[in-house]
Amino acid sequence: MTIQAIAFDAYGTLFDVYSIRESAEKIFPGSGAALAEMWRDKQIEYTHLRTLCSMYKPFWEITQDALVFCCNKLGLSLSLEAQNALMGEYAHLQVFPENLPVLQELSDSGMKLAILSNGNLHMLQSAVDAAGMQGIFNHLLSVDAIKKYKTAPEAYQLGPDIFAMPAKNILFVSSNCWDVCCATWFGYTTFWVNRHAAPIEELGVVPHGEGRSLLDVLEFLRKHHKT
Amino acid sequence: MTIQAIAFDAYGTLFDVYSIRESAEKIFPGSGAALAEMWRDKQIEYTHLRTLCSMYKPFWEITQDALVFCCNKLGLSLSLEAQNALMGEYAHLQVFPENLPVLQELSDSGMKLAILSNGNLHMLQSAVDAAGMQGIFNHLLSVDAIKKYKTAPEAYQLGPDIFAMPAKNILFVSSNCWDVCCATWFGYTTFWVNRHAAPIEELGVVPHGEGRSLLDVLEFLRKHHKT
Repeated sequence: MTIQAIAFDAYGTLFDVYSIRESAEKIFPGSGAALAEMWRDKQIEYTHLRTLCSMYKPFWEITQDALVFCCNKLGLSLSLEAQNALMGEYAHLQVFPENLPVLQELSDSGMKLAILSNGNLHMLQSAVDAAGMQGIFNHLLSVDAIKKYKTAPEAYQLGPDIFAMPAKNILFVSSNCWDVCCATWFGYTTFWVNRHAAPIEELGVVPHGEGRSLLDVLEFLRKHHKT
Repeated sequence: MTIQAIAFDAYGTLFDVYSIRESAEKIFPGSGAALAEMWRDKQIEYTHLRTLCSMYKPFWEITQDALVFCCNKLGLSLSLEAQNALMGEYAHLQVFPENLPVLQELSDSGMKLAILSNGNLHMLQSAVDAAGMQGIFNHLLSVDAIKKYKTAPEAYQLGPDIFAMPAKNILFVSSNCWDVCCATWFGYTTFWVNRHAAPIEELGVVPHGEGRSLLDVLEFLRKHHKT
């Protein structure tokens, strides 16, 4: 297997969406963790439903819709101020501490790097800038270009298209097990950053590599990257 | 609006999937409710992922996959005996008490009735028989015929096809808000059996009717069914 490029998922993989929990906890004491987790699940569910029904709308809006639903569900009164504060978190997410040096090392080695995300470009650019990752990525790929969210094949196809190489030569890295499993189905070489030691999804498919942080991606490449 | 036929969702709408909670509680004391809820969510998530990726497999198998994942996630050791017991619940689900008389009244009035479900035909027939609903439905429609789960348009299209009428003349009834919302997008007249007084999904679409049990479907039809 020759890996010539890497496509990273953004939310949960490069940027810590669960860091939102702390802001949520300040606004809704006792409910921050529950809100953050439900918000993330609902956000992803809405991307699936809207893609299945060809009812695309941008990720920023879906994220806001999901927040409104979750506050209703949890009986939390969402003021406009709280909504703006929580949505604002998405523009400057915390970054996992090992990520920047790993990405810098990969970039310095000549590996081509991209983000392939559900987020719209404005969200991605804000998160990259806030994380000090300017200049690291060759491409920021948003599904907004094709109006279908992962795990639609058209979304995964953005990687092979931009790098002009087969998916198997691209390492797709995500912390979301459903994302790496479906990317494996699509044809990528895949690596699951299993940050929380979760069980694997029972989808009958296994990612090619698995680790606990982005550091393990380096190890995987050392073992398998035959140029 | 002239309603000439009704298509019912099965699981959660006609058959009480959360009744599985009691069996689960006997097998895994203290974890029954959590397992039942997570199992249902994961089952639906897998239908979305497999449909988005064109990786269909029958609902019975997906249901089993979801059970295995949820037990792993919750740290519950799933013996083959427990797995068989819990899966067996799907073959003879409890039925909501008001459903049989409501369905009988609708059938007696000459309304054409169908089930339109993710479940494969064998699962549906077993559930119908166990519930004493033999002879009530003109059609049992399974997405297994087209190998795509709800909320794919091809799944919803089964209704207009079998009844040979536009979707707007068919009342689509489901207890799952995501299901009625997406059916509304598709073009059905829709009724949400909101059994647990849940907040509406923030999808920018509202079902035509809403109630707390199947009895409210009768009231909706009395108000809106102009023949």
